[in-house]
Amino acid sequence: MSAPMDQQRDLVAAELEETWPLLSTGERVEGFRLLPPEEAEEFFFDLPARDQADLVLALPRAERRLWLRLLPPDDVADLIQEADPEERGDLLALLDETTRREVTALLAYEEDEAGGLMSPRFIRVRPDMTVDEAIAYLRRQALAGIQGPELLYYGYVLDADQRLLGVVSLRQLLAASPRTLVRDVMETDVVTVPEEMDQESVARQFEDSDLVAIPVIDAVGRMKGVVTVDDIVDVVREEATEDIQKYGGMEALDEPYLQIDFLRMIRKRAGWLSVLFISEMFTTSAMTFFQAQLERAIVLSLFVPLIISSGGNSGSQASTLIIRAMAVGEVRLRDWWRVIRRELTAGLVLGAILGAIGFLRVVTWHAAFGAYGPAFGHVALVVAFSVLGVVTWGTLAGSTLPMLLRRLGFDPASASAPFVATLVDVTGIIIYFSVAVVLLRGILL
Amino acid sequence: MSAPMDQQRDLVAAELEETWPLLSTGERVEGFRLLPPEEAEEFFFDLPARDQADLVLALPRAERRLWLRLLPPDDVADLIQEADPEERGDLLALLDETTRREVTALLAYEEDEAGGLMSPRFIRVRPDMTVDEAIAYLRRQALAGIQGPELLYYGYVLDADQRLLGVVSLRQLLAASPRTLVRDVMETDVVTVPEEMDQESVARQFEDSDLVAIPVIDAVGRMKGVVTVDDIVDVVREEATEDIQKYGGMEALDEPYLQIDFLRMIRKRAGWLSVLFISEMFTTSAMTFFQAQLERAIVLSLFVPLIISSGGNSGSQASTLIIRAMAVGEVRLRDWWRVIRRELTAGLVLGAILGAIGFLRVVTWHAAFGAYGPAFGHVALVVAFSVLGVVTWGTLAGSTLPMLLRRLGFDPASASAPFVATLVDVTGIIIYFSVAVVLLRGILL
Repeated sequence: MSAPMDQQRDLVAAELEETWPLLSTGERVEGFRLLPPEEAEEFFFDLPARDQADLVLALPRAERRLWLRLLPPDDVADLIQEADPEERGDLLALLDETTRREVTALLAYEEDEAGGLMSPRFIRVRPDMTVDEAIAYLRRQALAGIQGPELLYYGYVLDADQRLLGVVSLRQLLAASPRTLVRDVMETDVVTVPEEMDQESVARQFEDSDLVAIPVIDAVGRMKGVVTVDDIVDVVREEATEDIQKYGGMEALDEPYLQIDFLRMIRKRAGWLSVLFISEMFTTSAMTFFQAQLERAIVLSLFVPLIISSGGNSGSQASTLIIRAMAVGEVRLRDWWRVIRRELTAGLVLGAILGAIGFLRVVTWHAAFGAYGPAFGHVALVVAFSVLGVVTWGTLAGSTLPMLLRRLGFDPASASAPFVATLVDVTGIIIYFSVAVVLLRGILL
Repeated sequence: MSAPMDQQRDLVAAELEETWPLLSTGERVEGFRLLPPEEAEEFFFDLPARDQADLVLALPRAERRLWLRLLPPDDVADLIQEADPEERGDLLALLDETTRREVTALLAYEEDEAGGLMSPRFIRVRPDMTVDEAIAYLRRQALAGIQGPELLYYGYVLDADQRLLGVVSLRQLLAASPRTLVRDVMETDVVTVPEEMDQESVARQFEDSDLVAIPVIDAVGRMKGVVTVDDIVDVVREEATEDIQKYGGMEALDEPYLQIDFLRMIRKRAGWLSVLFISEMFTTSAMTFFQAQLERAIVLSLFVPLIISSGGNSGSQASTLIIRAMAVGEVRLRDWWRVIRRELTAGLVLGAILGAIGFLRVVTWHAAFGAYGPAFGHVALVVAFSVLGVVTWGTLAGSTLPMLLRRLGFDPASASAPFVATLVDVTGIIIYFSVAVVLLRGILL
């Protein structure tokens, strides 16, 4: 519904947005200055905090102040957190007294806890105000225009010590009779979160309560700020990305793929890959242990990749399933026995299915190409039973490992699919050759 | 901040919630009826649509009507969608005329598109109302109490044909002078989404715009409903879970892990596992192809799991990274050349690191245990160069495959880590033995 002129302007901004990741800081400043003022504001608001910091620091001092003061205090805090430590003082000095105090308080919190997400600005009302006074007060706040869109719709009722007594929504005020006191209208059963609550838990509070804003309180019940739901959408997506990258066998990048510095990315990826590679060397040790059997029955080596990958795949599947179920709260630690029972059964069923496929493969290939020697029937049985054992074990290990890690206080997402696959590879070789030793004794071995 | 009596009541509800997944429908009804009315309402609202449907259908007809009418039309539509087809008509018949029409309209949409997410109830204002009239109207709506908490704060300005002209927030109304016309206050540059937009794209609109509610319009610009941000938090989490389960090498379960029917879960897991297992059989064919080399140099077989898993792990890493980056919009298809260049370099660097580790492993183990025969130096070189080749190839295949799938119109998440690992396993064997044939000619082969 933009007018044609709007679209004209949008084009410049769209072009800048398109090429943004490829531009140097100098080019970014140049492009940014080409934008008409209103466009520039919107563009600036939409940038990630890190890019905002780079841009502001590249501007002349007078302009810096201008842009910094446009942002609400929680966004200023994010921006300053992304700047180099030696420049933080300079940036803080650009703020007015009140905002500087607010921002300094926010900087004390971790980025990923409730205090780091909240806005310190919210509407305080007194319990002995009348409904009419409260509405007039909210209206004045709207005129002053300093509140975010969601915050305006709640008044937080605080006592003299800043302790939260209750909350009134604009809707409740509008529906109440004008002379009533706020204390008689307010909701006292308020959902709150402590200031150091992890952002993932804060997100879950929003989902459970369907609220638009949740107040943040300190240890003695004083209200410190408000977290709003629009920030939570970003949190949920960010946390999912982190988890997904961990499942994929790397450290979370914490930056967009095309923007992260190449060497920093390599460091985050090489660490886990090296650990996995070194762990996987135990497969060589296991193979060496069974070298005598291998020499006598070279046919066994042909199925090694097939067998160990079946365990790896079923282990990846089980661990991904359980890690995610724990992350979204569908599975809790105390469900461990139900999970193990379920996965043991699932492993046996899946193992039986794959084992049957493996048996058929060996028998039909031998019938068609005579590939596996006179003992092909026994070889087929070795493959079938090994797959059954390896898949069952992979499923069980993949599902219990994340719960074990959580129990020990580690992040269950570290039991990533590649990690489980590596663990299962080594044990898979042992299972395979053990089955072979039993079933092929006196035949090939 | 609950009073002690509240906590007493909460206990019963908490206990019911705790044991809920384990209970039969009969037991659920029994427990549900023990709850005091207010608790029961809250408990009912918080249930997933499927459980709501089961519960309502298990209640006597008179009670069904009561519970169904408590829900807003979008939630009723979700509930009816979860019921068996033959019971849908019965449930619809329980609704009053207006709601039935609204719900029937909603049922025409897919669950995962904008139309399936929206609420058909929103506040319509006319462009020629004064600001004071509009406020009074919103106030009456608040008194009637039929609107959700976010919807109240926007009035949508429609023409006679229900086409959306603009939007006014309560805040803008409060800040404007009472006699102004709505048309002079309203925002005309409104962010909207088309009714059949995919929910993932709707979620991205919310993130980009930081809005609390976005109107849904049909092809000719008529407003059909409103999507609110609290539903988007669920969407983002749901979509991430689906993606994560696909990365883990299975179909998305679409149901909580502990609640999904065991056989349905097995079907969703066994399909992909069987496909992977059958694909992985090509490793056996590849190994058979190099059987002559294997027989002459059995030492080569010892490193097969190590080599192929290094490719699998680096491929998983790259594919997870790129799939997620595409899902959140950090990487677009037209970035393909930058991604390939980046991943080729990354693959070479990671391959060189792992190759060096592999070389050292073979040499030191041989020095310590004399494990790998007189040609151990050549074997070490074969391992090093194979790992370099396999990791580079794995990284490249893992990153390009998701883009290729997207280009061909498939879901890139199908290029799951296990899928890439399987592909890379087969090629890894070919790379390994080819390197061996070149480097060991005249020595071991």
